[in-house]
Amino acid sequence: MKFTNSFSKTSKDVPSDEQSKNAKLLIRAGYIHKEMAGVYSFTPIGYKTLQNIIRIIREEMNKIGGEEMFMTTLQDSNLYKKTDRWDDGKVDIWFKTKLKNDTEIGMGFTHEEDITNIATRFINSYKDLPKMAYQFQNKFRNETRAKSGIMRTKEFIMKDLYSFSKDVEQHEAIYNKVSDAYVTIFKRLGIGEKTHKTFASGGSFAKYSHEFQTVCEAGEDEVYVCDRLCIAINKEVFNNEVLKDLGISQGEVRVEVTSEVGNIFSLGTKFSSALNLKYKDHVGTDQKVIMGSYGIGPARVMGVMCELMSDEAGLVWPHEVAPYALHLVSLHKEEGDEVYNYTKDIYEKLIQNNIDVIWDDRTGHGTGEKLGDADLMGVPMRVLVSAKTILEDSVEIKERLQNKNPDQKRSAGEITKTEVFLKSYSEGC
Amino acid sequence: MKFTNSFSKTSKDVPSDEQSKNAKLLIRAGYIHKEMAGVYSFTPIGYKTLQNIIRIIREEMNKIGGEEMFMTTLQDSNLYKKTDRWDDGKVDIWFKTKLKNDTEIGMGFTHEEDITNIATRFINSYKDLPKMAYQFQNKFRNETRAKSGIMRTKEFIMKDLYSFSKDVEQHEAIYNKVSDAYVTIFKRLGIGEKTHKTFASGGSFAKYSHEFQTVCEAGEDEVYVCDRLCIAINKEVFNNEVLKDLGISQGEVRVEVTSEVGNIFSLGTKFSSALNLKYKDHVGTDQKVIMGSYGIGPARVMGVMCELMSDEAGLVWPHEVAPYALHLVSLHKEEGDEVYNYTKDIYEKLIQNNIDVIWDDRTGHGTGEKLGDADLMGVPMRVLVSAKTILEDSVEIKERLQNKNPDQKRSAGEITKTEVFLKSYSEGC
Repeated sequence: MKFTNSFSKTSKDVPSDEQSKNAKLLIRAGYIHKEMAGVYSFTPIGYKTLQNIIRIIREEMNKIGGEEMFMTTLQDSNLYKKTDRWDDGKVDIWFKTKLKNDTEIGMGFTHEEDITNIATRFINSYKDLPKMAYQFQNKFRNETRAKSGIMRTKEFIMKDLYSFSKDVEQHEAIYNKVSDAYVTIFKRLGIGEKTHKTFASGGSFAKYSHEFQTVCEAGEDEVYVCDRLCIAINKEVFNNEVLKDLGISQGEVRVEVTSEVGNIFSLGTKFSSALNLKYKDHVGTDQKVIMGSYGIGPARVMGVMCELMSDEAGLVWPHEVAPYALHLVSLHKEEGDEVYNYTKDIYEKLIQNNIDVIWDDRTGHGTGEKLGDADLMGVPMRVLVSAKTILEDSVEIKERLQNKNPDQKRSAGEITKTEVFLKSYSEGC
Repeated sequence: MKFTNSFSKTSKDVPSDEQSKNAKLLIRAGYIHKEMAGVYSFTPIGYKTLQNIIRIIREEMNKIGGEEMFMTTLQDSNLYKKTDRWDDGKVDIWFKTKLKNDTEIGMGFTHEEDITNIATRFINSYKDLPKMAYQFQNKFRNETRAKSGIMRTKEFIMKDLYSFSKDVEQHEAIYNKVSDAYVTIFKRLGIGEKTHKTFASGGSFAKYSHEFQTVCEAGEDEVYVCDRLCIAINKEVFNNEVLKDLGISQGEVRVEVTSEVGNIFSLGTKFSSALNLKYKDHVGTDQKVIMGSYGIGPARVMGVMCELMSDEAGLVWPHEVAPYALHLVSLHKEEGDEVYNYTKDIYEKLIQNNIDVIWDDRTGHGTGEKLGDADLMGVPMRVLVSAKTILEDSVEIKERLQNKNPDQKRSAGEITKTEVFLKSYSEGC
């Protein structure tokens, strides 16, 4: 991608009402656009980054047997009346609207009722179980507090997986499989070390549910971390009984401010009872299906990554999430001069070698501005071409995380040899 | 994918209020779920099919330089007041809802206002032009008529591309490029021959816009087709002036009932004027940006494909769109018997060879039911394993479109050799 063709640009302007670090950086770097408080659009570079996060989640969901589907935003009130979640007094974050015939309908803030209802068509026998389906679909929540940038919004894509099991044993096997998949996902996203599997309130059907909480100053939660067992306890349920359950002493926990990046929840038969989702067992008796729900908000994850991985100069993306592998900067004076053409040649060879590169091909922008923009946008590796580097038939390579690898020179031939480059690149990461 | 693990199942039941052929077939085959009139969820097999259509559109949009982004459903009324499209008297298909502070907001029925507003941040100079960005995002339209299954719904994913140009010449080059891409898309989707580029009303800024209209009994439009020039004219603008413009005589057109699967539209400066999207030209003078918008509704396309390609037995998908490449049917008596194990071996080899196969591994279902389900689900190629085929160490291969290739036997070894199989497969298509 040439910079001059790219839809978005960097900018110094940030909406005056924007308080969060993640939104400020993402807006300046041209990744998102604020539509209103708590509502953000993703520009192409931002959506590419978000899609990289989504891809990682999708891959891990598919690996454990999840099937991707797509439910609707518009929701029939009748389903939610059956679970007593339609009344605004019970659920205070509904966005509601009306059909032409004045029927009130909802905008999905969740999809448990919907998936349970759909599943009644497909689950009739123990032979149909277990099943797992998930989606990446917008959720709408009429939040009053929306001050954390893309970490808490009124409209956000959510990965929600639902499981259906014939008994507790089958359910627990899935529950643990999803938990393991979440550990892998957060590790791949580069926030594994700061993310704690956290014991939280379980509802009616399980003593505990689990959250994945990432240590982050901008978060809204507090958890008690036990390093010995590599687990945490949500402040809401932190008491002596829980400590005893988990075999942890008061002295070995420390409190951390965190953001909830994922959760896994045993729903038991709450929804299958209310919406009549049952199956016939081996002897033909009706049994209620045991369900679980498992969420990750990719945009919140992206926000947390911004908060944790950025520095004063801007964003810092890990390789798997970055919108581009390489940020190529040419310090040419005009289109078609020696530096421009030298860089163009490298650019074209990188493209041929399937290296996803953005080339800052702008003319009339200063060195400081170009390098500043590269830092702001956070692509993991920067390759600089100038009249000086050309004299030595080389390029200057700098990783976004300077301390990992100081500035170094490499010959231009080498940078365009995919294998050599990728080898040295992956060693650098 | 094993049939017994698949989230959805086939069914004989269709909602009593369902009138359209496409929805009836897709519901019976387990591809979609009707949430309410004109609102459908996609099950995993349905979403996989829809995603194949989306992938084809995405590839062609990327080829012409489009960048994918993602705008929001929640829309600020202020933008639409500026273009005079907020008033329900002017736009009668809005779904509207309210924030906690009682501010009325809309659910996007389109995104022209939104993208124009976002573009004001990124377009300032002629050097920033042209630009093209697109998205696949839900649109919400409070339709009263919703009788055509997934061909006309209240909530639907739309591919909407927007272009920004500095002058008419630049705009027309993009307009023609998108038009060519659309031709390629509909050809790849297998409806190219039945899809006509159609002259339609152009609005204030161009004499004509263009629609892509597919001949389809279930459609809601009528067009006059001229075979000599391979174009059509929408009934709404069909008159002597248009015929003269296009050099067509009244005698050489025939009327066809069609469904609009795509449209391309010159917006001129309508939105850039209203929302102040301008750029500085070579001498520093402010100029208005010229815009275009280009839509395709992937679910409508899927509905049209159902209408056109199905037969009495069920759905018929072309190879590029089908949810699976192969439908493997084993007529085993019980799990673990000779037929089951023989089929399992083929299944595993196909998976190893990256052939996307669904295996009907159900036990206790009759031959007729299994073959009927295969026909209903519409996977292009069926491979049958029975006690009889095993005796000859072979499998029975049948293409969903029987007339293309009658039943034939092939050795089991051959079917699992990817290269040989894919070669014969592509020859069969």
